[in-house]
Amino acid sequence: MDSALPSTGARGTVAQRIIEDHLLEGRTVPGEEIALRVDQTLTQDATGTLVMQELEALGLDRVHTQVSVQYVDHNLLQADERNAEDHVFLRSAARRFGIWFSKPGNGVSHPTHMQRFGIPGRTLIGSDSHTCAAGSLGMLAIGVGGLEVALAMAGRPLHVRMPRIWGIRLTGTLPEWVSAKDVVLEMLRRHGVKGGVDRILEYHGPGLRGLTAMDRHVIANMGAELGATATVFPADDAVRDFLRAEGREQDFTELTAAPDARYDLDEEIDLSALEPLIAAPTSPGNVTPVREVAGRPIGQAVVGSSANPGLRDFAMAAAIVKGRQTAGEVSFDINPTSREILQDLTLGGHTFDLIAAGGRIHQAGCLGCIGMGQAPAAGRNSLRTFPRNFPGRSGTDDDAVWLCSPETAAVSALTGRITDPRDWAAEHGVGYPELDLPERATVNTAMLEPPLPAEQAATVQLERGPNISALPDFPPPPDTVEGPVLLKAGDDVSTDEISPAGAKALPYRSNIPKLAAFTLTRIDPDYPERAAEVRAAGGHLIVAGENYGQGSSREHAAITPRHLGLNAVIAKSYARIHWQNLANFGILALEFDDPADYDRISVGDRLRIDGVHRALAADAPPTLLVRNTTTGDDYRVHHRLSPRQRADVLAGGAVPALAAQAQRRGKE
Amino acid sequence: MDSALPSTGARGTVAQRIIEDHLLEGRTVPGEEIALRVDQTLTQDATGTLVMQELEALGLDRVHTQVSVQYVDHNLLQADERNAEDHVFLRSAARRFGIWFSKPGNGVSHPTHMQRFGIPGRTLIGSDSHTCAAGSLGMLAIGVGGLEVALAMAGRPLHVRMPRIWGIRLTGTLPEWVSAKDVVLEMLRRHGVKGGVDRILEYHGPGLRGLTAMDRHVIANMGAELGATATVFPADDAVRDFLRAEGREQDFTELTAAPDARYDLDEEIDLSALEPLIAAPTSPGNVTPVREVAGRPIGQAVVGSSANPGLRDFAMAAAIVKGRQTAGEVSFDINPTSREILQDLTLGGHTFDLIAAGGRIHQAGCLGCIGMGQAPAAGRNSLRTFPRNFPGRSGTDDDAVWLCSPETAAVSALTGRITDPRDWAAEHGVGYPELDLPERATVNTAMLEPPLPAEQAATVQLERGPNISALPDFPPPPDTVEGPVLLKAGDDVSTDEISPAGAKALPYRSNIPKLAAFTLTRIDPDYPERAAEVRAAGGHLIVAGENYGQGSSREHAAITPRHLGLNAVIAKSYARIHWQNLANFGILALEFDDPADYDRISVGDRLRIDGVHRALAADAPPTLLVRNTTTGDDYRVHHRLSPRQRADVLAGGAVPALAAQAQRRGKE
Repeated sequence: MDSALPSTGARGTVAQRIIEDHLLEGRTVPGEEIALRVDQTLTQDATGTLVMQELEALGLDRVHTQVSVQYVDHNLLQADERNAEDHVFLRSAARRFGIWFSKPGNGVSHPTHMQRFGIPGRTLIGSDSHTCAAGSLGMLAIGVGGLEVALAMAGRPLHVRMPRIWGIRLTGTLPEWVSAKDVVLEMLRRHGVKGGVDRILEYHGPGLRGLTAMDRHVIANMGAELGATATVFPADDAVRDFLRAEGREQDFTELTAAPDARYDLDEEIDLSALEPLIAAPTSPGNVTPVREVAGRPIGQAVVGSSANPGLRDFAMAAAIVKGRQTAGEVSFDINPTSREILQDLTLGGHTFDLIAAGGRIHQAGCLGCIGMGQAPAAGRNSLRTFPRNFPGRSGTDDDAVWLCSPETAAVSALTGRITDPRDWAAEHGVGYPELDLPERATVNTAMLEPPLPAEQAATVQLERGPNISALPDFPPPPDTVEGPVLLKAGDDVSTDEISPAGAKALPYRSNIPKLAAFTLTRIDPDYPERAAEVRAAGGHLIVAGENYGQGSSREHAAITPRHLGLNAVIAKSYARIHWQNLANFGILALEFDDPADYDRISVGDRLRIDGVHRALAADAPPTLLVRNTTTGDDYRVHHRLSPRQRADVLAGGAVPALAAQAQRRGKE
Repeated sequence: MDSALPSTGARGTVAQRIIEDHLLEGRTVPGEEIALRVDQTLTQDATGTLVMQELEALGLDRVHTQVSVQYVDHNLLQADERNAEDHVFLRSAARRFGIWFSKPGNGVSHPTHMQRFGIPGRTLIGSDSHTCAAGSLGMLAIGVGGLEVALAMAGRPLHVRMPRIWGIRLTGTLPEWVSAKDVVLEMLRRHGVKGGVDRILEYHGPGLRGLTAMDRHVIANMGAELGATATVFPADDAVRDFLRAEGREQDFTELTAAPDARYDLDEEIDLSALEPLIAAPTSPGNVTPVREVAGRPIGQAVVGSSANPGLRDFAMAAAIVKGRQTAGEVSFDINPTSREILQDLTLGGHTFDLIAAGGRIHQAGCLGCIGMGQAPAAGRNSLRTFPRNFPGRSGTDDDAVWLCSPETAAVSALTGRITDPRDWAAEHGVGYPELDLPERATVNTAMLEPPLPAEQAATVQLERGPNISALPDFPPPPDTVEGPVLLKAGDDVSTDEISPAGAKALPYRSNIPKLAAFTLTRIDPDYPERAAEVRAAGGHLIVAGENYGQGSSREHAAITPRHLGLNAVIAKSYARIHWQNLANFGILALEFDDPADYDRISVGDRLRIDGVHRALAADAPPTLLVRNTTTGDDYRVHHRLSPRQRADVLAGGAVPALAAQAQRRGKE
């Protein structure tokens, strides 16, 4: 496996140029912690309410970034007052802290941010794992936990371990009926959901010429599914065209790799050789050619989400279904990305074609992509242009969600079966649609409220509804951590399984005690109850396999287990963002020295770890011994915390650490 | 109060002509039970799953009606698999029993039924209280409980007490900025939510000329809010124009009142004298001129629902907001009625104007009107063109929902305050929009699946998901009913308070034990628990004020209390549909001889009613004595059950009564 290869020493790449331009601390040696200046931030509503509470806890007056934007795109169902009260709270916080506010209905954060705020060469972090999508414009865009974003808004740098830079050279051109989604599905087919861990994926080569900026967004967006720290494209003519179409050509700066650029790792994809691909339930890594699963009946097809957000994606679906009818047993759902794109879609007649063919047109937002509605019937195949199909993320237990291109989704909606669009086209004598899209995009910023002037902002009061709790207080860890293993998780457990999204849980994203009752219930429905039973007696531990915490950036996946008394996780390995979130909220994230020890621990075993404080001291060896007092076995484990993170964990988390710092400064 | 006036003897009215044409039993004397032939039925998904289970229980092979249609318009959020599984079940049942099936996304039942199936002179019953909207076409359309619909599908007549016919003569023409909604709000202002009880509202007079068929739909729809049995308009040129526009001129028959028609009661409205009206929280009867509440800040404005469904209503809102922007703090929600109307709205450019002004375009369906999403923040004013604003129906406890015309909603969305559209127009020099609407409506029936041929239908299997329970079995009532009064309700308690709709409860509409946990919790959160405690000991009673069970047709409001052990309700009076539903499910619906006795009963008192069986015998006096064993008081009460209903209650409900009949027939 090539992830074990040593670095070959990248130089002159787009990613490196941006990193070097923003480097505040550290060396650009893969694996070492670096600190980067943050130009822009984005937050969405499912994570943003906590971020705003963190800004409050930090005592922030006004954001220090060039641009910070609060989007409302996740919790739009409004099944009761909680969503609407979150929206009111977020708007008041945006007005208070000098943040742009994107109203409910304005659109999904990632494409909207790209259209309105993306600038080549800048850094962006966001409390959403798909923030990486902005790499399409030659930005370094990284999804992180909410607290990282809050700290960046407060003017502090982003700390991250320097990734290796993976050059992916594209050659050839995409065949008909094959589109950008199939490119990133090909990457997932080759490398799986851990293939990008601790890497920046940097696309280059002559194949780029055939990919628009929005096509690149599709590819960059799902870099998150490979576990990559970021995905970066050059800022070339395609980016200039995009910014011009958005009325922002002045924001364009060319940014390409040096002619002699070298990457840490190299890969090549011949676009001409690709075919329609699909990720089978229940992982984005289960990729297979569509033709190999063709013929299975479907109950739903959904076009939209930040993984296929462009006007082109909807217009393609519209061109395919125009003058035809979707199958009787299929719900054909259309989730417009943003109201700007819906305006253009409507002007161009595509909205009409989609409606006439049986499309259910929904409001602009994330919707079913985050499990807010559109749940399919159990066991019935649902084809979606979304980025993720983790089990239950759709809102349906035993769901069967497949990820594919708009072409595959639209054709399958017509036939009622998973269909390779090339076969359908051949059978019906249909040519690949040539789309006639406008050169200039609609620009309509009326639902995007600019920051208030500082003087006015200072007078704004936060409007906090009864469902918005304060951040809970967590104490420092004891020197001896001891307790039962309440859960033994397998590989690739996602944050959707740790802290579910969906219509039931998401309204509680601002209310930690309520949300905690959903923690890990997809894996073990009794976990919250059993955790509550032993909380007073010192809490508990979790044991996990590889890539623990893959998926979204939600810090709730650290906070709610912590609230239930989780002291330490011992895993084979972690997903990047979740690992950082565990440190931010004072949970020990330990790794087995010998992964085989995983098999020697059972649920219910009591573990004891002595000398925790010493192992967290700035220069101490990061190793610990775990005693299984049930079996008498010992296991060697280690942590990978930087000195900064060690201090955070020792203080009980980054918020108490910052509070203590502020107190010390106050006493000086 | 004119409801105490004796009948003056109606004759030659449109309603009477339809009744006489369909009369199978009884005399058309107000208050006497009559039996009517049913030509058409409609069911929607929130009530239809039970209806389909009732058809199963009745052993139906194929419907006997001219037209029966199963719509899916209520439960479209799909927060988990239950909604989608209901849709699958309903489609399979429609295919099995010879019923039309209107797919999710095709539209709201009432306007869609009017457009595709409405025929002057026919009878329609539906398991939705707003079924009365079809009276706009000169139909006799009545909302009833689901079991009534199931029986009609099985070929049995509808039993109903002959209402008095209330002639409402319209004169003059509506002023600018005043529209159909204001006409029915004026009726509610004059007469309140009980003003139409036991009446058919029949509109006539020269003022009709200015009202299109869809305008009349607005007025007929909210006849339900007056408690009316039905609302009837003549089938005149406006109806012919409508049917022609829908491509169905062949279905037109003129049907008007005789020149010398007489009504039981008479009323007159001068349309020229009306002004914009609004129903304040939390009753459709709290009507006041908009100007009297102008200036209050709003957080939301919603256009749509079956109470303002026409292309004209959306196009008017679009014309008002075109080129303008809705206020920053306002969510402007657009709920298209049907995909056909959304097609025309899109073709005409109105969809674009609404999006551009900040509208959130939602899928076609009932949505927020039935509490499926769009819940406002607590206490923030929400203006809606909906028919109802009962407390909590929006999904928000402590909601503040106002009902108004599209004109008032759209203008207020722009200003961010409740605004009389005339004042806004004067201030901004805006003329009343002249709409240029197409003469022919889009007809697109591809989402409306016709009944299968009988041979094919007979082979269809019902697709029953795990969340769809069977109908519960209820035993006959004891001869002595005894138990505690668990709840003392005030006047005008709605079925929304008895069995809530909304995103939490609606997914359980096919699962009685689960749904029962929501029963009456808006009034008393502990009611289900306390009822469960005394169920085994013989159950309990409820005491209520006037108009108990107003609002929707949902029979769940009878079934779930029955499931929890409710034996009898003693009220001052009942809403029509709920009263019938209580009888259908074997609950004694008693009325105080002396309403003042209501004040002599407290929650917790134990009541005892002897001789129940005798009082339900076919020819026995319908009077009973209630002994309050806590206070020693006695109260005289009576029931108003017909001989048919007495037999049903004695058997434990209409389903066991029918089952017993079938068994007897089998033995003969």
